Amino acid sequence: MQQLVEDLMSGSRRAAARLISLVENDAPLKRELLKEIFPHTGKAYVIGVTGAPGSGKSSLVDCLLQQMRADDLKIGVIGVDPTSPFSGGAILGDRIRMQEHALDRDIFIRSMGTRGSLGGLARATREAIQVLDAFGKDVVLIETVGVGQSEVDIVRTADSTMVVLTPAGGDSVQTIKAGIMEIADIFVINKADLPGAERTATEINMMLDMKESDQWRPPVLSAVSVRSEGIGAVWDCLKDHRRFMEESGRLMEIRRERVRRELTEQVEYLVKNRIWDQVKEQIELESLLEKIVLRREDPYSAAYELLEQINFYSEG
Amino acid sequence: MQQLVEDLMSGSRRAAARLISLVENDAPLKRELLKEIFPHTGKAYVIGVTGAPGSGKSSLVDCLLQQMRADDLKIGVIGVDPTSPFSGGAILGDRIRMQEHALDRDIFIRSMGTRGSLGGLARATREAIQVLDAFGKDVVLIETVGVGQSEVDIVRTADSTMVVLTPAGGDSVQTIKAGIMEIADIFVINKADLPGAERTATEINMMLDMKESDQWRPPVLSAVSVRSEGIGAVWDCLKDHRRFMEESGRLMEIRRERVRRELTEQVEYLVKNRIWDQVKEQIELESLLEKIVLRREDPYSAAYELLEQINFYSEG
Repeated sequence: MQQLVEDLMSGSRRAAARLISLVENDAPLKRELLKEIFPHTGKAYVIGVTGAPGSGKSSLVDCLLQQMRADDLKIGVIGVDPTSPFSGGAILGDRIRMQEHALDRDIFIRSMGTRGSLGGLARATREAIQVLDAFGKDVVLIETVGVGQSEVDIVRTADSTMVVLTPAGGDSVQTIKAGIMEIADIFVINKADLPGAERTATEINMMLDMKESDQWRPPVLSAVSVRSEGIGAVWDCLKDHRRFMEESGRLMEIRRERVRRELTEQVEYLVKNRIWDQVKEQIELESLLEKIVLRREDPYSAAYELLEQINFYSEG
Repeated sequence: MQQLVEDLMSGSRRAAARLISLVENDAPLKRELLKEIFPHTGKAYVIGVTGAPGSGKSSLVDCLLQQMRADDLKIGVIGVDPTSPFSGGAILGDRIRMQEHALDRDIFIRSMGTRGSLGGLARATREAIQVLDAFGKDVVLIETVGVGQSEVDIVRTADSTMVVLTPAGGDSVQTIKAGIMEIADIFVINKADLPGAERTATEINMMLDMKESDQWRPPVLSAVSVRSEGIGAVWDCLKDHRRFMEESGRLMEIRRERVRRELTEQVEYLVKNRIWDQVKEQIELESLLEKIVLRREDPYSAAYELLEQINFYSEG
């Protein structure tokens, strides 16, 4: 593993891919690995891009990649599909369109799926970002499809979040989920050549007017990504937001929160492991379960007694 | 609270509603409450109904409620929307159509949304089932919209799971998410008067043929819920599956697993609470976080040291 981390540092794409697979599969040596790369992280800026399927997110990301490359940035892209249990499932198709970028040595593209748990996906995404950060990427772009809470959890890892919409046509933007409204730092109305683009922008701005004022008011931009229109402004706006985050101290703040979450998870992981090891050694768990199934004991009292038996409450 | 639980037992709908709100809001006395009602649970049979938006789930549930009422069963319905942060959000509209049932004293209907975390929603659903179980409902029906993993987690709480589809038309059923395939005990092709119903049934059966054989092969039924067609067969099939679950011992098995999960969660809840209480008392967490943000320490080593400092490792 030491070797893998060294290869990562020296720019091996294979090492990066291997290491992301390790965190995605929750490999036993994952924590050792994250510990190893941690000192080399904290440099990449993380941009989240989210929006409904069909909003043209991927072609917008495509265009943005060109802008970023023109600024000579090294980029990692993580495509996350919370609706797919497969790594590289539904959005692999989108990824294929990015193949021209895939040939570019300074862009690294990877897809991730749920593998059974949404909580696990948000964590794996965070860890994959760490790998790409240590890998030396200047920007890590997380693109996520899906609806509602799952994408909110994933995008919460980003330093700047862009929400992509399409002109609402007959529908109103009321259908935008509340959670999405709150995570957006920048709104982009893509396919803005379709009817209703202006009305959609107006509606979003009205919704923003109702929010408490903040130091940063999310701009509402328009783009037609298939014709590469409006992309320069989107990229400028992302840079503006980054500058705001850095200068206002917000970036430091959210990164501190992220570190807090990391530490919390790690503490709880260690604690749980040790507790269950002790329980396994000392407690007849199956007969206890039997008693609960038969309603002779409730799980709440049983949990307490179990911890008393392993002397959890005697110390500290 | 004692009073609330007593009211629940004596059939108060208001008490049921209040108690579900308490578990949904993760109220401080929630665990005490669940402990109180636990001895009165374990009697209700839990049926999960899931399927894409627009598959006519709700009208199918409507029809099923009539069948169940004809069998003189008391029923609780929990509508869960993983895509909505609001309790009673998106599916409230569907619920309104159920108002004729709402007037029926033996049917209790409730909607739930995410309130910020998907993991929390699955747990709140499990706990609401416990309330309705103690309330004396013979059947608790969980209806969930949404896509992918989130609904899988929620439906996993059910004793029997019904997946509702519509004729695929031009599309193939390939679009059924893998996770959904695996949780179905019964498939219902609703709106079976639309073109393609038979082909859809054939395709599902082919997919089932590819699976390893199990004692229970999920039947693929057809229905037209808006005309109440095929509902009797669906209800018979649900009863067949329940009989299978009981006689094969599978029901006992999955309920034991559920109890195991409950106990596990409870143990980890107690442990985490105590550990963080101790940390708060004894550790300068903020300065530790600062060190991690500055990359002078990694979160993995920091977690270990923190636990050593509160003497977590000295006992047991």
